[in-house]
Amino acid sequence: MNLHRNPIPVEDAINKVLACQIKGDIERIPLMDADNRILSEDLIADHDVPLFDRSPYDGYALIANDTIDASLHNPIVLDVVGAIGAGSVYTEPLQPSQAIRIMTGAKIPTNADCVIMLEDITEDSPSQIKLIKKMKKNQNISFQGEDVAKGTVIVKKGTKINPGIVALLATFGYKDVPVYKRPVIGVMATGSELIEVGEPLEEGKIRNSNAYMIISQIKRAGAIAKYYGQVSDVLEECVEQMKRALNEVDFLITTGGVSVGDYDLLPAIYQQMDAEVLFNKVAMRPGSVTTVSTINEKILFGLSGNPSACYVGFELFAKPMIDTYLAKESIGLKIEKAILSESIDKKNSFDRFIRGKAYMEKGQLHVKLSGKDKSNMVHSLAEANCLIHLQAGRDDYRKGAVVDIRLIDELY
Amino acid sequence: MNLHRNPIPVEDAINKVLACQIKGDIERIPLMDADNRILSEDLIADHDVPLFDRSPYDGYALIANDTIDASLHNPIVLDVVGAIGAGSVYTEPLQPSQAIRIMTGAKIPTNADCVIMLEDITEDSPSQIKLIKKMKKNQNISFQGEDVAKGTVIVKKGTKINPGIVALLATFGYKDVPVYKRPVIGVMATGSELIEVGEPLEEGKIRNSNAYMIISQIKRAGAIAKYYGQVSDVLEECVEQMKRALNEVDFLITTGGVSVGDYDLLPAIYQQMDAEVLFNKVAMRPGSVTTVSTINEKILFGLSGNPSACYVGFELFAKPMIDTYLAKESIGLKIEKAILSESIDKKNSFDRFIRGKAYMEKGQLHVKLSGKDKSNMVHSLAEANCLIHLQAGRDDYRKGAVVDIRLIDELY
Repeated sequence: MNLHRNPIPVEDAINKVLACQIKGDIERIPLMDADNRILSEDLIADHDVPLFDRSPYDGYALIANDTIDASLHNPIVLDVVGAIGAGSVYTEPLQPSQAIRIMTGAKIPTNADCVIMLEDITEDSPSQIKLIKKMKKNQNISFQGEDVAKGTVIVKKGTKINPGIVALLATFGYKDVPVYKRPVIGVMATGSELIEVGEPLEEGKIRNSNAYMIISQIKRAGAIAKYYGQVSDVLEECVEQMKRALNEVDFLITTGGVSVGDYDLLPAIYQQMDAEVLFNKVAMRPGSVTTVSTINEKILFGLSGNPSACYVGFELFAKPMIDTYLAKESIGLKIEKAILSESIDKKNSFDRFIRGKAYMEKGQLHVKLSGKDKSNMVHSLAEANCLIHLQAGRDDYRKGAVVDIRLIDELY
Repeated sequence: MNLHRNPIPVEDAINKVLACQIKGDIERIPLMDADNRILSEDLIADHDVPLFDRSPYDGYALIANDTIDASLHNPIVLDVVGAIGAGSVYTEPLQPSQAIRIMTGAKIPTNADCVIMLEDITEDSPSQIKLIKKMKKNQNISFQGEDVAKGTVIVKKGTKINPGIVALLATFGYKDVPVYKRPVIGVMATGSELIEVGEPLEEGKIRNSNAYMIISQIKRAGAIAKYYGQVSDVLEECVEQMKRALNEVDFLITTGGVSVGDYDLLPAIYQQMDAEVLFNKVAMRPGSVTTVSTINEKILFGLSGNPSACYVGFELFAKPMIDTYLAKESIGLKIEKAILSESIDKKNSFDRFIRGKAYMEKGQLHVKLSGKDKSNMVHSLAEANCLIHLQAGRDDYRKGAVVDIRLIDELY
């Protein structure tokens, strides 16, 4: 059951996936649950900030004109007529020669036009203060709207919600937050050589690690994973299982069974499911046999059973699709330049994406290989935070050369 | 109720917090829930990888010696005696002039000593293959243990679990994963000027945004937040509420009420609770009035009510404490060098930590101010992913200068 495979360039393959443009719906969720979700509407100020003229310090509100003659040799004495705690309001207008104790954040009373800080007061008592500092009109007042005017767009839709944005959402009364729904992505493992993680090893078999890895990659990308376990290797049953899964998810990812071996059922399955194959071979290593197809507005990703190829295939092709679904501001892996900290001697007849560990040194991005990079080695996956892109035909990847990397995880 | 406040240098304050060395317990959690948790034991290979000599390709296993005379003009014909799918085992020893179809990942049968790839076969039929390529002994075999030997430490404890590590945990049979417990951190807001996020605005009041922000910072740092709402401004009730909360959490964070204003209860509360104050003033801006105290092996963080000061206080002092509790490999904010993309004209009589947006350009780290940096402005929190450290006494922070930054969020 060999399918004709016509390799296409990596960027073409990514673009074919992105062209699908499957976008998620919008939902409103409680502010407390909004971390790391993607805003689906612009965040708009529902009021001026500050909402009223307020004091940025603990001190005394007064009328600047009263201090016009203040100096070391001419201390000014003002009558303290009250105190305003933050959150309370003083309703009387202030009169000349009067001062009022005011707390940080409290509203400036009528007629007061400046605030003197506590440490600038020479003497104070509950009824009087003495000061030697000449104050300017408007000094130490945070004016209504000076930070943000009502109606301003504070954060654009498509932005990931971080603690600072949570603070803004709280400030502007977003008890519920409009965000894009996360896609639900089904994961199915294929391969009769697989045993599950809790089972004892058997001769000739290996533990299923790809499915767990993909589930973790799905979560890192901000989507929801749904694990369907291992599919049957009987064609009809497998088609049935995949059809059922596709009804319950937005995308479906399979791992294994996409190589050209005799026991690979997926090409036959794609035919039976009427899948439109976008590509079934990519001119790259690892992951050349990655297959992506569409079935009724849903996407089926057939990733390799090889751990490295599976990992790379997910990040290059499934990650941008998730970003698109979430309507993120930035789609796909961020491409950066980094200095190679070791030579890579491999000849590249194909574009290669090898796992790397990018790190900063004095503000400059460097990258090294993360472990040995044999495609069947799961070992080097652990510390990878980027993919190093080695271009086909180039073999000048020496220590100190600048190389393109695609970031997949934190740098620190 | 003013407490004597003796400012200490920032690094001294951080070190005082770290010296507490409050560490969390260990728990075992399902592999599916282990993302982003911190490994509490070294991850050890429970078997060789590969577990047996296996084929890295789809092809035919054979005896290299049979191909010694193979050439374009002297094709060699071998009898195909069977097929080994991945996961199945062929128990007969291979005889001279025999070949066996083998799938990627399948176990090499006895006597076979190399694998010829499918594409290197000149002709094949179910019973015979013809080849013109001379094979070498051991060619195309992945040998037992060549990736990882049983007993090897694969990942060190203290490492954050990412998708690659999940794959390794699955490979080595970690159905449950040993991780450090996450600290539970209580959050209490103080301040009678605060109204909750769902309530309509009132004159003189502001919405409580700090508590939500801190809760989000706690989650970003990998801990669990527990929100206690606003505390009473009656001393006895407040002490009671805080005592009760401290019984339920590992650390307690309060926001507001730590300034020197008349209405601040916290110094009195600390006295009543017999808290040992580690420091109550730090020689920095914003956040100078950050107070940290210990009460019976628990830590009480008194963060400012000012949003910027609260944010910075959390990242500088509470984040390293969480890292310590989680026994992370790296504690506290990572310090990096970045190039200033704009001049900062502020005079710095104190160490300042202003919010910045760090970004990469051709592999070089740059940083700009994130929004205007007035301490009462919540606005610039949104895009901050680092704190720019401006040292006391220096005023040469010109465009192009190299500056220390502390990373608090993703760079991309």
